[in-house]
Amino acid sequence: MDNKVIKAALLGLGTVGTGVYKVLKNQESEMEAKIGSKVQISRILVRNLEKASEKVEDDSVLTNSCDENINDPLITIVIELMVGMEPARTYILAALRAGKHVVSANKDLIAVHGRELLEAAEANHVDFLFEAAVAGGIPIIRPLKQCLAGNYITEVMGIVNGTTNFILTRMTQDGMEFQDALALATELGYAEADPTADIEGLDAARKVAILASVAFHSRVVFDDVYIEGITKISSKDIRYAKEMGCDIKLLGVAKQAEDGIEAYVCPVLIPSTHQLATVNDSYNAVFVHGDAVEDVMFFGRGAGELPTASAVVGDVFDIVRNIRMGCAARIGCTCYKEIPVKKMEDTYHRYFIRLQVEDRPGVLADITTIFAKYEVSIAQIIQKETKTPGSAEVVVITSTVREGDFRTAMAELGNRSSIRKTSSVLRVYGK
Amino acid sequence: MDNKVIKAALLGLGTVGTGVYKVLKNQESEMEAKIGSKVQISRILVRNLEKASEKVEDDSVLTNSCDENINDPLITIVIELMVGMEPARTYILAALRAGKHVVSANKDLIAVHGRELLEAAEANHVDFLFEAAVAGGIPIIRPLKQCLAGNYITEVMGIVNGTTNFILTRMTQDGMEFQDALALATELGYAEADPTADIEGLDAARKVAILASVAFHSRVVFDDVYIEGITKISSKDIRYAKEMGCDIKLLGVAKQAEDGIEAYVCPVLIPSTHQLATVNDSYNAVFVHGDAVEDVMFFGRGAGELPTASAVVGDVFDIVRNIRMGCAARIGCTCYKEIPVKKMEDTYHRYFIRLQVEDRPGVLADITTIFAKYEVSIAQIIQKETKTPGSAEVVVITSTVREGDFRTAMAELGNRSSIRKTSSVLRVYGK
Repeated sequence: MDNKVIKAALLGLGTVGTGVYKVLKNQESEMEAKIGSKVQISRILVRNLEKASEKVEDDSVLTNSCDENINDPLITIVIELMVGMEPARTYILAALRAGKHVVSANKDLIAVHGRELLEAAEANHVDFLFEAAVAGGIPIIRPLKQCLAGNYITEVMGIVNGTTNFILTRMTQDGMEFQDALALATELGYAEADPTADIEGLDAARKVAILASVAFHSRVVFDDVYIEGITKISSKDIRYAKEMGCDIKLLGVAKQAEDGIEAYVCPVLIPSTHQLATVNDSYNAVFVHGDAVEDVMFFGRGAGELPTASAVVGDVFDIVRNIRMGCAARIGCTCYKEIPVKKMEDTYHRYFIRLQVEDRPGVLADITTIFAKYEVSIAQIIQKETKTPGSAEVVVITSTVREGDFRTAMAELGNRSSIRKTSSVLRVYGK
Repeated sequence: MDNKVIKAALLGLGTVGTGVYKVLKNQESEMEAKIGSKVQISRILVRNLEKASEKVEDDSVLTNSCDENINDPLITIVIELMVGMEPARTYILAALRAGKHVVSANKDLIAVHGRELLEAAEANHVDFLFEAAVAGGIPIIRPLKQCLAGNYITEVMGIVNGTTNFILTRMTQDGMEFQDALALATELGYAEADPTADIEGLDAARKVAILASVAFHSRVVFDDVYIEGITKISSKDIRYAKEMGCDIKLLGVAKQAEDGIEAYVCPVLIPSTHQLATVNDSYNAVFVHGDAVEDVMFFGRGAGELPTASAVVGDVFDIVRNIRMGCAARIGCTCYKEIPVKKMEDTYHRYFIRLQVEDRPGVLADITTIFAKYEVSIAQIIQKETKTPGSAEVVVITSTVREGDFRTAMAELGNRSSIRKTSSVLRVYGK
């Protein structure tokens, strides 16, 4: 084989699949000069042949049998762009075992079965690359594995879900409430018909699991990640945050502390001067702290047909370069450590609490007394009158406290008759 | 050779050299698990043996003869961290010809002799990597060559000089004048004793040449880059820019237009809402636009001992992986096109002009008449009284016009007796 033409199969011709098809077409005239070979999509697995035929120049490449792709010895690279666990997992494993290189954008799958897939790739001396699985078009996996390899990464933190960032941006800039902002996101195509995975933080958590595994060289899976979504955020929380010099962002956070890895997704108050606070609309960004590089941030489109395809094709081209140089599987799994993941209860945070309380003397004393019992001190406090007679609203920012202790304090506080309602509990970035 | 230990030589033990030494020491225990081999600094070329001996654990590695490094067959990687053209160029060429891989952070050299160095590497089947030459610790060369390889990049634009960004930030946030901000930068160690290369834009221009070459696959050298520094910017310009919703940043810009490449460094008015406008102090950022990925930005520390060392060590580790897999020179020179670089006169911009004029009727008519003759239309105009009797200050933002035509119009305008002084001429980002 002279490798002048390298044949690839696409599994899936949805948004990203169509994007990859387009980007490879666009690069056709330049590919050989750039990477030494031409990549040809010689088969595409689709569900609906008729619908798919409108998207491709030559519909003879379409098939609805995956076996044809996996068993064809002429196909060298399999590009998996399906959604969910199965049959994606079975197809990828079969492809790897058949000695094919695989590119995948399937974060759901990789966040759970990443180890199995990377081990299968290693056992078969082939590449399994997944740059597109985190933050769409933004280069982050390869920079972490290569450019920043000289660092001990202590923190990876990002806005890794465009839908929720769009919703929070509208709530911040236009004063919208969550439901209205979600409706707008759906109308504009930023949110899916069932937005659960986005607004409940599941999508972000998958990315956090993958990012943490790559950054800390220790496997973190979806189930390890503590998750809170943005459905309970109100425009009032955002206004109070602004008064305190902060924006509210849904952050995916992975930290390497001395006693283990912390991994969570939740809305966080972040100082408006922080570089991540300037990331608005559906943009994504991943912020990395390493002992040598200090702070570095990667910003761009976290989703979309062509941006995600950009990442997929970057991986495909890298595999082509490996094939030509005979160095497949040049960089495989980099999880050579086993670091425990901490329980959320054992992590430390500052908290933003918004409470509806009785408007009478002694209520603030109630709050401070209970907090003091659990060694929670108060850093900032705002009390305002409300429209309800006899009721006031109190907003507190605490100092740093262990989450488990904080939860106990909050439970005790909730039992006090003077506390009518706990409207919000959010975490605050920084010590 | 089992490649368990890979020996490297450091040429230079200044700020970055010391950083590389430290980062490799820090990674010692982890290196083998990460990249399969240990990298050992077995020789360091220094000028002053005595001074250098304080910086290393074992001073037997120090030498002031470069020949010892180049001729030692046990040394596989040469890390060049000197400054300026010679003897760096001679040393690197000798190392490459001796079959050694080279990592360099020498932007001065690469912006002029990049082609020669990359060709020598290719001829000798070795790697020549230079991630640290642009924007310090920020991953940008590898992301452009690999992650974004599926794109036609049309624009690379960045804040690639930390000294000038610090100065402009102080002028913007504290209302300082240039000379005071420069003095502060010198005091804090952000500016060198001779700040010329920074404040006149030469340092940024070297990075633009390298970025353009990598992004557009066509060699752009230092002499191709049009350069203006920031020495003429006053806090007044910055205040007017703010009134017009913009910040002033020293941008390095490389664009690929249909008729050629544009490459220049100059202070630019950029909308305060643009992601680059939020990059302050000594931080750097590179903004890239590609046909697939759309907008993506890379942000971080553009200089400094450890951040720059992070990039150097990333390159060293990549070379180790190549050595172990037998795929040296996996990605070499990617300039497979020859695209002309346009003259600055032939590029199109909007302009910000600040003029001191006679305060009498007809002056604005003078300006608009001359501009109209050269098809320069006016997008925004502000006129203010000044302290000088009979004098007024006029600030104009033009529509887009060819630079050559604009210069002719400005020359003609300068001859009018009603125009007392042209205080500032700056370019404005966007159409």
